Amino acid sequence: MARKQSLPTRAENFSEWYNQLVAQSWLAQTSEVRGCMVIKPYGFALWENIRDRLDQMFKVTGHSNAYFPLLIPKSYLSQEADHVEWFAKECAVVTHYRLKTSGDGQGVEVDPDAKLEEELIIRPTSETIIWRTYRDRIQSHRDLPILVNQWANVMRWEMRTRMFLRTSEFLWQEGHTAHATADEAIHEARQMLDVYQDVMENFLAISGIPGHKSPGERFAGAEDTLTIEAMMQDGKALQSCTSHFLGQNFAKAFDVTYTTADNQKEYVWATSWGMSTRIIGGLIMSHSDDKGLVLPPAIAPVHVVIVPIFKTPEELAALHAALDDQLWKLSLHIDSERLGDVDIPLVIQWDEDDSKSFGWKMTDHELRGVPVTLAVGARDVESGSVQLVIRDQEDKQTTTIDQLGTAIVDQLGRMQVRLFATSKTRREDNTVSVDTREDFIAALDADQFVLAHWDGTVETEEAIQELTKATIRCIPFDQVQEDGVCIHTGKPSQGRVIFARSY
Amino acid sequence: MARKQSLPTRAENFSEWYNQLVAQSWLAQTSEVRGCMVIKPYGFALWENIRDRLDQMFKVTGHSNAYFPLLIPKSYLSQEADHVEWFAKECAVVTHYRLKTSGDGQGVEVDPDAKLEEELIIRPTSETIIWRTYRDRIQSHRDLPILVNQWANVMRWEMRTRMFLRTSEFLWQEGHTAHATADEAIHEARQMLDVYQDVMENFLAISGIPGHKSPGERFAGAEDTLTIEAMMQDGKALQSCTSHFLGQNFAKAFDVTYTTADNQKEYVWATSWGMSTRIIGGLIMSHSDDKGLVLPPAIAPVHVVIVPIFKTPEELAALHAALDDQLWKLSLHIDSERLGDVDIPLVIQWDEDDSKSFGWKMTDHELRGVPVTLAVGARDVESGSVQLVIRDQEDKQTTTIDQLGTAIVDQLGRMQVRLFATSKTRREDNTVSVDTREDFIAALDADQFVLAHWDGTVETEEAIQELTKATIRCIPFDQVQEDGVCIHTGKPSQGRVIFARSY
Repeated sequence: MARKQSLPTRAENFSEWYNQLVAQSWLAQTSEVRGCMVIKPYGFALWENIRDRLDQMFKVTGHSNAYFPLLIPKSYLSQEADHVEWFAKECAVVTHYRLKTSGDGQGVEVDPDAKLEEELIIRPTSETIIWRTYRDRIQSHRDLPILVNQWANVMRWEMRTRMFLRTSEFLWQEGHTAHATADEAIHEARQMLDVYQDVMENFLAISGIPGHKSPGERFAGAEDTLTIEAMMQDGKALQSCTSHFLGQNFAKAFDVTYTTADNQKEYVWATSWGMSTRIIGGLIMSHSDDKGLVLPPAIAPVHVVIVPIFKTPEELAALHAALDDQLWKLSLHIDSERLGDVDIPLVIQWDEDDSKSFGWKMTDHELRGVPVTLAVGARDVESGSVQLVIRDQEDKQTTTIDQLGTAIVDQLGRMQVRLFATSKTRREDNTVSVDTREDFIAALDADQFVLAHWDGTVETEEAIQELTKATIRCIPFDQVQEDGVCIHTGKPSQGRVIFARSY
Repeated sequence: MARKQSLPTRAENFSEWYNQLVAQSWLAQTSEVRGCMVIKPYGFALWENIRDRLDQMFKVTGHSNAYFPLLIPKSYLSQEADHVEWFAKECAVVTHYRLKTSGDGQGVEVDPDAKLEEELIIRPTSETIIWRTYRDRIQSHRDLPILVNQWANVMRWEMRTRMFLRTSEFLWQEGHTAHATADEAIHEARQMLDVYQDVMENFLAISGIPGHKSPGERFAGAEDTLTIEAMMQDGKALQSCTSHFLGQNFAKAFDVTYTTADNQKEYVWATSWGMSTRIIGGLIMSHSDDKGLVLPPAIAPVHVVIVPIFKTPEELAALHAALDDQLWKLSLHIDSERLGDVDIPLVIQWDEDDSKSFGWKMTDHELRGVPVTLAVGARDVESGSVQLVIRDQEDKQTTTIDQLGTAIVDQLGRMQVRLFATSKTRREDNTVSVDTREDFIAALDADQFVLAHWDGTVETEEAIQELTKATIRCIPFDQVQEDGVCIHTGKPSQGRVIFARSY
């Protein structure tokens, strides 16, 4: 199937540009199941790359993967008060375990004799079932810490859904750790946020502001929620991931205690942290343009596509003979704080499909965000040079064929750096400090992040949201201590927080 | 937490030996959610290794991963008659999408206002939702083949569950391919069975009999089901995986047609194929012994544990200094038909935990099936030699420290070969051809696989099962054509099939 229509531009309609782009670039499609999407192979390949990188970092930082049941007894969910209040309104409930032939013999219906004694909830997140399990596993301080992660699907019954950004079912990882001390858990929550920042900056090329969520925006059951807030091209914020210090809330709810070295009983301290397929939405809205996807080379499923111009198999073979030596075992070097040197093997494809026109192919690779594309024919081989199309650059780059491998690696490296720099500059240039309500609203309307004073109360946060549709995205880790007055109430404040409209 | 009790022997009680072993070796534990287990890190590491190997092979054979919704509308399931009949009796049904605070203000209850118009089923397998999606995706012969795999959790409401072997929720991969011709689909189904056989033989060290399922044992909606039947240590068969040629059944049910090169409309041909966490049960029951797990090195999460004997940090450092050079970057070489040469990096751990006794540690590593364990102290360093404990051998192997790396790699390679040979010999030695009903029953009671003639009818298969609790495990690919008479009815038969009792 072919590209059906051209995209709307981002300036015309950012939201529609996004929807069309996801569909046309073969990342995902909607399904008839409410709010659930089908992640197609090209979209799933992005998730595999993100997942593999995160998984490596989790293991380097001492975590293991495990798997917990999909279904959570209703009574578990009720155990932690904030938690159940948050999730009860949007959960898929299993009530029966069997269908039977309908009375009319046509089709099937729920068998009323197969009603569950206690309803089961499809996990919206797994704190409750995991802490129920930890109760059996933790007795002594020698059993701590527990450093576990789970890769899983979860379900939250969303009323308004958008592909990747907000779907009823989504894929994610959820880390759940148990510690003997508050300090250790606080350190863990911060460490995992740093891991996310490493992946975002060095692989996804997305710059964000790390910080604490305000109390009103904390996760249900958390004492502190850390976040990284990235700025999309329309100036809106995307919460890219979260890492929670859960205090002893779940330990108390599920009665999980341990015996200290000097034989005291203490409740266990907890964290949880997650990144989901939502980040793919963030990746798209960070880098892509009016012609299609732009993917950072460190995460792209395909790095280079060669479109050969040929009429006979012999001509094609001659092109391979001229180029293949140069394309053997190339890799992109990325420097990660957690992983050190990472060498990503390049995926190079020849597009030899003769049922499509040359122009169609080039447009399609552009749409799919292939970082480097090159057309090559007999004339190029004779001249000994080819032109590289770099996805995020207007001008083509000429290189000699005997330097082709080096040139490709060099261009991919530059592109990776450039995309991150663009993301960072966009955010920095569009983050302003304001001191009046008028300037505050003007900045939001100009699609900016706003650094403003706030009196620290949930009431004011809600009032500002009511008035402006903006929320506190985070209290940045690098917040400067300064005296000021709240933008809304005029009450005293000791530092600015980030406000923005958000996804 | 410590090892609580010794295992029953296999001879005493094979079933209880299995249950205790799974729990004591930290692979998995039961949960309070009916029939669902928690896969613990050590068990999940086994699954990760199996998954990574399969995934590599799927990609080498041209497949991509994708992801489809967890929930399937009831009407989809009803679309294919055999399919719904099979799965309707054991499916988890979602009927509501919200909870609300209970009338008494205590806890939560299902909100009757949030009833779904159409119930949703948690996928027991994904043919229906995937073929509904393929309808939108396939128009022309140019859209074929589609070669897609999904890694997912699925749910079948089992009444009698056993960890790994039969759980309500389990993890698996399910391949779903679409083809223009029957031949191509038949070839695909066989190719994927060959992939499974490669993983089983070369990595899991399990020998099995590949063949066709008899019509009575075919998957719901399949024209042909291929299987590999492995023999466990108690003589029972384990269906290790299946690969189905689905004909045009799902294409017809979901109206999926394509236009041929000469502009005809044709229904699409299909396969599906899967391997699940059940294979971990097979792995355990193939190799382990009365002292604990025995894991093939190619799949073991940890290959070597060194238990140092030391009193001071200086003594420990001296042991590291003496050994670490030899343990740097070792790998185990495996030869796979699909992947060619595979080099598995060895995971080597030092067990320096001073809260456990030496004896406790050695027993624990034995229980967990670590392939090579070595105790080492200052005296060994002085003498320049150490003793390797090989998990499946009685006698220790002595090696010089300056040949330690080579000796470890060599021993692991031998162990891998030996475990497969043992599995194969056990199956071959315990497979007998019989021609009378008395010998048939005697062989089954002696825990053997039986090669016997069968008249080819479902009725006879059912009658034999009724009588003996044995089923036809498969019609082997290498079945010898020979005239004979059915063991049960005396009717003519042209070849022997494999009967056994099974998991």
